[in-house]
Amino acid sequence: MSLESDLALANRLAEAAGAAIRPFFRAAFSHEAKADASPVTEADRAAEAAMRRLLDAEAPRDGIIGEEYGTERPDASRQWVLDPIDGTVSFMAGRPIFGTLIALLQDGWPLLGIIDQPISGERWVGAAGEPTLFNGRPATTRTCRSLADATLATTGPQYFSDHDGTHFMALAAQTSHKRMVFGGDCYNYGLLASGHLDLVVEAGLKLHDFAALVPIVEGAGGTMCDWNGEPLNADSAKENGGHVIALGDPARLEDVIDGLACHHG
Amino acid sequence: MSLESDLALANRLAEAAGAAIRPFFRAAFSHEAKADASPVTEADRAAEAAMRRLLDAEAPRDGIIGEEYGTERPDASRQWVLDPIDGTVSFMAGRPIFGTLIALLQDGWPLLGIIDQPISGERWVGAAGEPTLFNGRPATTRTCRSLADATLATTGPQYFSDHDGTHFMALAAQTSHKRMVFGGDCYNYGLLASGHLDLVVEAGLKLHDFAALVPIVEGAGGTMCDWNGEPLNADSAKENGGHVIALGDPARLEDVIDGLACHHG
Repeated sequence: MSLESDLALANRLAEAAGAAIRPFFRAAFSHEAKADASPVTEADRAAEAAMRRLLDAEAPRDGIIGEEYGTERPDASRQWVLDPIDGTVSFMAGRPIFGTLIALLQDGWPLLGIIDQPISGERWVGAAGEPTLFNGRPATTRTCRSLADATLATTGPQYFSDHDGTHFMALAAQTSHKRMVFGGDCYNYGLLASGHLDLVVEAGLKLHDFAALVPIVEGAGGTMCDWNGEPLNADSAKENGGHVIALGDPARLEDVIDGLACHHG
Repeated sequence: MSLESDLALANRLAEAAGAAIRPFFRAAFSHEAKADASPVTEADRAAEAAMRRLLDAEAPRDGIIGEEYGTERPDASRQWVLDPIDGTVSFMAGRPIFGTLIALLQDGWPLLGIIDQPISGERWVGAAGEPTLFNGRPATTRTCRSLADATLATTGPQYFSDHDGTHFMALAAQTSHKRMVFGGDCYNYGLLASGHLDLVVEAGLKLHDFAALVPIVEGAGGTMCDWNGEPLNADSAKENGGHVIALGDPARLEDVIDGLACHHG
C-alpha cells in the first residue's frame, strides 16, 4: 500500500471512531473497572470495534494492536495501533480534550500517526518524512531559546512513580513552572506540534499512548524520545517504563535530559 | 434593576468578552509578566475593557472589581466582578477550556454568576434562588454516595502551599484518585454543575476566581464553601487564603471537610 492510501485509511478510521464516540460524550453510560482501575467506557469499545471492522475489510493482512481488544496477526510487519479514547478520565469528566490515537508501525517503528478530537473537530496527522497537518494545514513547533522559557505539560503527577516524580520535578523546576499545565493526555502533544507549548514529559505510557504521537511531533519539527534520548518504537514501553519526552525545539534536548538528571537502562 | 435585566446585562458582558477574546486564541500575541508572573494577554485586557464599556453605559452606579483594571466605585452595594480569562495558562497553551467569569455581588454576596467558554460556545448561568442553566437548559449536579466514589478535580498541584498540599493530598487519597483530573480552572466548576464530576478543591483563589462560581454550583444543587465549611463572600479570599470547596452532593460536605483534616482560622 502507498503512504497515500495508508493515510486515507487512517483518516477513515478516525472518522469511524469519532462517530462511535460522540453519542456517549457527557451522556450517562455504564463502565467497569479494568485491572488498573481506569474506566472503560462503552464509547471506547464501540470505537475500537468500528476501527477493527474497517481494518479487517481494508487491510486484512496488517496486524492490529488495540487497547481494548488485544493483538491480531502479531507477526505482520505492518501493525495498526489503536487507542480509541486516550484520556478516558478527561472524557468521563466531560472535557473535550481527550483524543483517538491511530498509528501504523512498520517493523515496530511509527510510520504514521493521527490524534483526532471528535468533539471539537480537531485532527493532527503525521507521517514519517512528511510535514504534519492540523486540520489539513501545516503545523510547526516553536523555537524555545532556553529551558527557563519552556512551557511544560504533563497529564498529572499521579502517573509518575515516586522515583520518576523526583526526576520530573527536578526538570520542572528549571522550566517556566508558573506556566506549567496539567491534564491533557494526547492533546498536549498536538498543541506542542502546533507551537503552543514547548515540552511534554510523561512516564508509564504504553505503545498505544505514544506510537501515534511520534510522526506528528517529528513532522512538525520537534523530537520525541525516551528519558535517555533514545528513539521510541514498539519495544520502548517494555524496556524503559514508558518514559516519553516530546520537545518542540530539538536544540533543547540535551538540556531536558540533563534536567531529568538520570540515565535509565 | 430586576434579576431579569441583570441577567440580560451579564449575558451581554459575556458576549462582548468572547468577541474580544476569540481573535487572540492560538494567535501570536504579546504578553508581559505581572508581579505574580502569570501571563497577561492582550485578550485579557481587551475583554475586560469591552465589559467595562458596557457596564459604564448600562449600569453606571454599580461598582466594578476587575482582574486587570482594578476597582471602581468600591462603596456601591452592587459590584460586578470580572475575570476576562480565568485559566490564562491554559489559554496560552491553546486549550479551549479557559473561561470568562462574570459575577454580580450584592453587599459582598454573589447574586449571579456566569462561566462562559468563548471557543466551544458553552455558558453556565447561575443566580441565587434560580436553577442553573447550561446553554439555556437546566444543569444539575449528580449524587455521590461516598467520598471513595468521588471524582476530584483541581487545576494543579503548584497552586497549593506545602501546608495546603498536605491537606489536599489527605483528602485526595480518600477519593477515587485514579480518576482525579488536573487542569481546568473554572471549567471544572461548570462540569461539576452539569454532573460530570463530584468535587473541586483549590487554594489561593481570589474573589474574581470564585465569585461567579457560587451561584452556578448552588443553583445546580451543589454547595460551595471554604475549607471550614463557611460560605464564600467578598471577604473570603482575604480571610481564608482563597480555600475553596465545590461539591456536587452536599450530603458529602462533612466527609470532605474531615478529609481535609484541618480547621483553618
